[in-house]
Amino acid sequence: MSRTDPPGSTGAEVDVTAAARWLDGRVLRTPLLRSPAIDRLAGARVLMKAENLQTGGSYKMRGGLYAVGRIAAAGHRGVVAQSTGNHAVAVALAARGYALTATVVLPVDAALTKVARVRAAGARVVLAGTTVAERLAVVSRISDETGHPVVDAYDHPDVVAGQGSASLELIEDAEQAGSPVDVLVLPVGGGGGVAGACLAAASRPIEVYGVEPVGCDSLARSLAAGRPTPVPPAPTIADGLRPACVGELPFAIVRDRLRGVIRVAEKEIADAFQLLLLELKVLVEPSGAAGLAGALRLAAGDPSSPVDGGRQRTVGVVLTGGNVDAELVARLAAAARNREEVAA
Amino acid sequence: MSRTDPPGSTGAEVDVTAAARWLDGRVLRTPLLRSPAIDRLAGARVLMKAENLQTGGSYKMRGGLYAVGRIAAAGHRGVVAQSTGNHAVAVALAARGYALTATVVLPVDAALTKVARVRAAGARVVLAGTTVAERLAVVSRISDETGHPVVDAYDHPDVVAGQGSASLELIEDAEQAGSPVDVLVLPVGGGGGVAGACLAAASRPIEVYGVEPVGCDSLARSLAAGRPTPVPPAPTIADGLRPACVGELPFAIVRDRLRGVIRVAEKEIADAFQLLLLELKVLVEPSGAAGLAGALRLAAGDPSSPVDGGRQRTVGVVLTGGNVDAELVARLAAAARNREEVAA
Repeated sequence: MSRTDPPGSTGAEVDVTAAARWLDGRVLRTPLLRSPAIDRLAGARVLMKAENLQTGGSYKMRGGLYAVGRIAAAGHRGVVAQSTGNHAVAVALAARGYALTATVVLPVDAALTKVARVRAAGARVVLAGTTVAERLAVVSRISDETGHPVVDAYDHPDVVAGQGSASLELIEDAEQAGSPVDVLVLPVGGGGGVAGACLAAASRPIEVYGVEPVGCDSLARSLAAGRPTPVPPAPTIADGLRPACVGELPFAIVRDRLRGVIRVAEKEIADAFQLLLLELKVLVEPSGAAGLAGALRLAAGDPSSPVDGGRQRTVGVVLTGGNVDAELVARLAAAARNREEVAA
Repeated sequence: MSRTDPPGSTGAEVDVTAAARWLDGRVLRTPLLRSPAIDRLAGARVLMKAENLQTGGSYKMRGGLYAVGRIAAAGHRGVVAQSTGNHAVAVALAARGYALTATVVLPVDAALTKVARVRAAGARVVLAGTTVAERLAVVSRISDETGHPVVDAYDHPDVVAGQGSASLELIEDAEQAGSPVDVLVLPVGGGGGVAGACLAAASRPIEVYGVEPVGCDSLARSLAAGRPTPVPPAPTIADGLRPACVGELPFAIVRDRLRGVIRVAEKEIADAFQLLLLELKVLVEPSGAAGLAGALRLAAGDPSSPVDGGRQRTVGVVLTGGNVDAELVARLAAAARNREEVAA
């Protein structure tokens, strides 16, 4: 497997500022959105970066494009990746932009719509096994056979740096608007986004929190254990936050930089999804909405609540993506309707 | 009834540029959004101004705030309005901002959630009758008794000017991005928004189109008849486009300036809603989505199609608002899911 960086490093070679400069003009500088209703619920000024509006529908486009762009510049003719979610689409779109071959390994039981989306983005799809380990083995074999580098979804320095550029833009735009962020909250799957956020915030007095669904708390367990620790797969509507284990590179970056991990229940994720849809008027996938769920949990009595000594704090939340099946939207909106009826 | 301008004028006193200057910093300068999938369907570069992200959830905040702000500056202590939709909320929020009393007349059979939203925005709610005529009579009486001016939802020069500021921002931001708009498309209810758009576009070679649901085509009939012509109420999911008759002031403005009216079917509005939700990742109410439905209809073979002699044209669409009940979101998303299943 071709890696451009050994796992286990401390992130010194992950340059978020360089990634942000490279991505400037290549990805959307997505807006910061606010909602009075959400500010009230959070007891804080909540600035939400709408990466659901990003090209490809998620902030994964940043890491995918940066990594693939540098691979193309190095003269490679193709890339290999595995992911059932946004990373696969991002790598496929990025590779098409550079006229590289993209090979994406998906599980044999992948949803047809997922397969169709990756194919529509121009990638060659290989169906293999049902577990991440099986897919990684196939990825490694294809990479060895073709010589095409692997773009890992989170254990790759350029992916971490690219994802971090979303947090850096949030921090900079909040400063420019006169509301520098005190707290930054990101959902955690493999940990690439939250690692990038820690690096983006490094030179400022900003507390960074990760958010995991209860039962998918590999990062929380890893921090407690002092090393990357897998969890058995658990069901969650936040399908992007289900990786069995946080990546080694993200773990090495966050272990001494993260303020804490907030664990949120399914109901809190669904509530955040509905708030974002009906109050902020944006479609954010449950994985992306988990960040807001965490920010609201902070407000609801965590010792480090955003309401701090009477001063209203500013909380930045990256809404990481918006790719949701219509069926799940219908189901969550119907649940919101039932709640409205009970309240009426 | 207190009016600041007689109906039937030609709009010379409706100053969109002055309204835009006044509103700068008081409302959000909402972003222009794009989607490759929508560009493909339209055969054009489609720039969508996301006024669903506006304060209060719709561009009605612009006209409401501008009108109420000038009424407050003139020394009045309150305002009166009637509307079952976004205008009522906009006037209530604006009045609260200026510490004015807002009295909003709603029908006796108004949905409880609508009544609750107007009350939550700080207005005194008066329930009266079931028709617009009945409500207008009550509005007139309250205005006479209290001396508080009426802020009509579209037959008011400041409301038209305020709504027009959304189109002006779209035009200016598109120019600044190097993609000046060739066509501007707005949904038509009472006609305030499309009248403002005509004035905003007046000094440039821009074709402005209005969009009406089939059966709610008062503007199309009025243009044919040469005078404001009511239509019998017809059912539509685009509840904001149901006024029985276009306003006299908007009609006077658009009659010689509008390129045409596009009539769209319910299915086209629902399709546009789903595209905006699942591709653009924003929640736009069906009334707001009707503008996109019209832009897509233009592409689908109208003689004045946006694909013009091989050059790709730029079409601006104002997504006017995003206030939708969860029930309707669930229903429309479920319909999209069924379509996905058929396609799979």
